[in-house]
Amino acid sequence: MHRIPTHIGIIPDGNRRWAVNKGLSKEKGYIYGLKPGIKLYELCREMGVKELTFYGFTQDNTKRPSVQTNAFRKACVDAVRMLSQRDASLLVIGDVNSPLFPRELKPYTEKRKIFGKGLFKINFLVNYGWKWDINKIIKSGNINQLSQKGLFDSIASSQLSRIDLIIRWGGRRRLSGFLPIQTVYSDIYVIDDLWPDFKKEHFYKALKWYQDQDVTLGG
Amino acid sequence: MHRIPTHIGIIPDGNRRWAVNKGLSKEKGYIYGLKPGIKLYELCREMGVKELTFYGFTQDNTKRPSVQTNAFRKACVDAVRMLSQRDASLLVIGDVNSPLFPRELKPYTEKRKIFGKGLFKINFLVNYGWKWDINKIIKSGNINQLSQKGLFDSIASSQLSRIDLIIRWGGRRRLSGFLPIQTVYSDIYVIDDLWPDFKKEHFYKALKWYQDQDVTLGG
Repeated sequence: MHRIPTHIGIIPDGNRRWAVNKGLSKEKGYIYGLKPGIKLYELCREMGVKELTFYGFTQDNTKRPSVQTNAFRKACVDAVRMLSQRDASLLVIGDVNSPLFPRELKPYTEKRKIFGKGLFKINFLVNYGWKWDINKIIKSGNINQLSQKGLFDSIASSQLSRIDLIIRWGGRRRLSGFLPIQTVYSDIYVIDDLWPDFKKEHFYKALKWYQDQDVTLGG
Repeated sequence: MHRIPTHIGIIPDGNRRWAVNKGLSKEKGYIYGLKPGIKLYELCREMGVKELTFYGFTQDNTKRPSVQTNAFRKACVDAVRMLSQRDASLLVIGDVNSPLFPRELKPYTEKRKIFGKGLFKINFLVNYGWKWDINKIIKSGNINQLSQKGLFDSIASSQLSRIDLIIRWGGRRRLSGFLPIQTVYSDIYVIDDLWPDFKKEHFYKALKWYQDQDVTLGG
């Protein structure tokens, strides 16, 4: 393949629907989303992708029943732990000032933590909110400073680069608040299968489709 | 149909490709995008949609050759004129402080102009830029005022409501900077046909698809 996206965003949707299809209760689905994450990491490394951002959970998601919020919070902690045993540099982006933020992940929010050779960047959005992200601007100082610094350097996720390709599992064709600033020009590929049913072929199909997209950025 | 989107966003892409396919030069495509716009307006009125936003052109688009920028600027002026003869209230959103903004449209930018019974809202993005839209925050006063007023009431497009459904013609699966704040939870339906090849059936298909989408807003 001649065009490899530099930064891929992953929306791993469908864990609850998958669990229900299997006769399990909804919250049991999240744990089956861990292995797909590791597989995807490996495929991205092989293909030369430089940065990968996983949509963990959002502040809007935390309105769900606590049996579910506990399950997806734990899945995020486990995912970060598993990936910290690989070559990658990890960064967690999310609102730490909430009891719903898993405190185990706090050390990953301050600066990128390097594991192994660390060349590959992985970002996790954990207790993330698009409003929270952009509202950070207000906390960044006075208007004159902001004008000089640049508004987009003042959002909470300013360390994350522009996303080239978003792959969403679970059939929904929307962004659901996923990094509105970094995704303005992202190509969006939707896979109808649910995230726990991840197959290598999904990823290859998305990359193959991406080959034929032009990157004009409006020009 | 039991679920009609309140606010539909339209990305009328593919005018240039359509022209090239017909053996015309690229800029000739825009004029063929006018009739589809009127047809779409009529269908939306019939179906009970309340608000419609057309993606006219963006500041990024203005980097194109002037023969093209002149053509799409003229098409926007013509479209607004045609729609001003119907029942609708029109609002144009875009950066007027640029020679590329068509001055004929300036009166539509200050406040919504009502034509006929005016119940149906139509918005046109003309010389719009997502950075320009959000950067407006900086020009809105001091940080304390912003905190009180709410950040999202200070963007340039703050008069536009959340978009329920985006329909994009021309096959590209991306937002291309279309109102990043209003589209965070929009369902996105892509039609492979090019905009000048608009058919009623495209619209009906999009609405039919929308019936089966759930609106969870992350909950």
